[in-house]
Amino acid sequence: MSAAALLSNNSIVATQFFTFADFLLENGERLSTVTLAYETYGTLNAARSNAILIAHAFSGDAHAAFFHEGDNRPGWWDNMIGPGKAFDTNKYFVICSNVIGGCAGSTGPSSLDPATGAPYALDFPQITIKDMVAAQKKLVEHFGIEKLYSLAGGSMGGMQVVEWLVSHPHSMLSAIPIATTARHSPQQIAFNEVGRQAIMADPNWRGGNYYNSEIPRAGLSVARMIGHITYMSEKSMAEKFGRRTKADHDTTKFHADFEVEGYLRNRGDFFVRRFDANSYLYISKAMDLFDASGGRHLSEKFYELEAKLLVLAFKSDWLYPAHQSLEIVTACKVSGVPVSYIEIAANYGHDSFLVETERQSQLVRHFLSRVDELIP
Amino acid sequence: MSAAALLSNNSIVATQFFTFADFLLENGERLSTVTLAYETYGTLNAARSNAILIAHAFSGDAHAAFFHEGDNRPGWWDNMIGPGKAFDTNKYFVICSNVIGGCAGSTGPSSLDPATGAPYALDFPQITIKDMVAAQKKLVEHFGIEKLYSLAGGSMGGMQVVEWLVSHPHSMLSAIPIATTARHSPQQIAFNEVGRQAIMADPNWRGGNYYNSEIPRAGLSVARMIGHITYMSEKSMAEKFGRRTKADHDTTKFHADFEVEGYLRNRGDFFVRRFDANSYLYISKAMDLFDASGGRHLSEKFYELEAKLLVLAFKSDWLYPAHQSLEIVTACKVSGVPVSYIEIAANYGHDSFLVETERQSQLVRHFLSRVDELIP
Repeated sequence: MSAAALLSNNSIVATQFFTFADFLLENGERLSTVTLAYETYGTLNAARSNAILIAHAFSGDAHAAFFHEGDNRPGWWDNMIGPGKAFDTNKYFVICSNVIGGCAGSTGPSSLDPATGAPYALDFPQITIKDMVAAQKKLVEHFGIEKLYSLAGGSMGGMQVVEWLVSHPHSMLSAIPIATTARHSPQQIAFNEVGRQAIMADPNWRGGNYYNSEIPRAGLSVARMIGHITYMSEKSMAEKFGRRTKADHDTTKFHADFEVEGYLRNRGDFFVRRFDANSYLYISKAMDLFDASGGRHLSEKFYELEAKLLVLAFKSDWLYPAHQSLEIVTACKVSGVPVSYIEIAANYGHDSFLVETERQSQLVRHFLSRVDELIP
Repeated sequence: MSAAALLSNNSIVATQFFTFADFLLENGERLSTVTLAYETYGTLNAARSNAILIAHAFSGDAHAAFFHEGDNRPGWWDNMIGPGKAFDTNKYFVICSNVIGGCAGSTGPSSLDPATGAPYALDFPQITIKDMVAAQKKLVEHFGIEKLYSLAGGSMGGMQVVEWLVSHPHSMLSAIPIATTARHSPQQIAFNEVGRQAIMADPNWRGGNYYNSEIPRAGLSVARMIGHITYMSEKSMAEKFGRRTKADHDTTKFHADFEVEGYLRNRGDFFVRRFDANSYLYISKAMDLFDASGGRHLSEKFYELEAKLLVLAFKSDWLYPAHQSLEIVTACKVSGVPVSYIEIAANYGHDSFLVETERQSQLVRHFLSRVDELIP
């Protein structure tokens, strides 16, 4: 039995859906109707004061913890969310929703446009991180929650956390941005751009209109492979694969010789079965467009903020390097926001927030217990 | 006038060709005839003791310095090679040849197979770094040179330098491997593999048989874009591009918004006009297969070595990190080979050896002047 299985919750959860009408986007366009797929874990208390919102990363979804009926794999942050875990469902009511623009139940480019009855494809408006957060805010209000106990997320999830702080500075007691940034760097934009180019270079992409034909499998797979390299570290790849060649090594020219090649191809193949290529384009572009500071110093955006922050980064994360987290920390300090910062000595690169969670769990648990002290 | 033009040599050079027959490759296959494209700069002395071999990087060619008649851009290392420069053509006879497997005049997959009269395509045998070096050795012997004064190269050029030390330990007085490794890491293999996948995913690739039809332009361009990101550093990209948007920003969805996106697309477009997709596959695979140590400690391969070494790495180079250069240095020390090592504080990432050459020039010039002391 794997460590992950050993630690997982036995609880069953089902994805739910929340729909609202006439959503005005940051760019001025409107969606006549929006659905968010979401899941909850634990129980909302009578005062509605124990809610924690979890924001997912680029390719994540609403299924953050527990099992879906019949599945043998739990949600993507099941090692962090559950009874007695960092986000303790015995104490907190945890909410996670699929972002707008996504392809796991929320409205996105693969959804049917009510005006035409056909998938939006590239008629879907360019959503932003601010739009993702605005939609989440409606879900939180739907639960009658005025103030979140906390909100947390890694990578693009952390970008949503930072945007919450800027857009809704009075709506949370605390926040935990992890392995993230207030603004995508040219290097981060460049990696996303190459992924988009790989997708759009696939003739099956057809300008985004592939929903009734072959999907751009090859392009999307290449995009995912690039992503996976950036999520790992040089060291974690060396430890995981070394220069070992595949046992079932196909001697056809340019088939996978090395284990690392086979791994990447498998991850790419797996990804195309669950992720929509147009969602890849829209969501990666939303990340690239993200600049929480709006071109000013980030601290100016935090003046009204009433939350306390825990900011986490990982030493081996070269995609979202620690200096980007430190920019958030500096902005807090300049604007008088209480902040704790820890750079965790993990080896797994950017994926550390998902897979190397022991130290992260300790820090989150301790931080959340101190948020309690803020409550009268 | 740009700094590059100001510093360039005014001399004209023409690419020459050296052909030899019946070349036995490392994998046991044979090429009935091999041509190497090469250039020389400076004059071979009567004793044939002043020759320096320059090995090019992945996408380089024989045109390392000076101008081709009518061209306004000099060779790729013109800032390092010429009268009074680091590789001083007033003193040294500098040779550079296009690697076997290449597409700039040397025999490679786009060459005509004498047996069929058609391009080899994927019938070309998988060449290795050792094969590249063996072919260069024949060229050096063609000039009647028994011992090179030095040999130098960055990146894949440095890998050829290391292979020379292993294959021909008595054939040089000195050597300068730059920004390189004795063995490709899983991360380096992974980036190459994604580039190969991008090429092979392009329907125009047609299993390598595209020489009489459309070339796999889109796939090769994506591969090159990935490469360019890895050649730069986070810092150099931030300094070069910031988050500036393109002046002629096309508002079509997913066209290039940011300068960095436009830059990458331009580099990709430029590359497909000069580089053969199958050469990309063969040469990148040769790099991935490279392990100079043959699975043992590298020092064991250096026992017979009679050269002195200058090993250079760059602080901001995350693709060929300094610890890989230090492995070469350690092997020298263990086996008693005189070695100097400098990690240069350059910002340009892996590309530093090509573009940030002032400090590199000083070190190479000083090192080469001390090699003189070895000569009785």
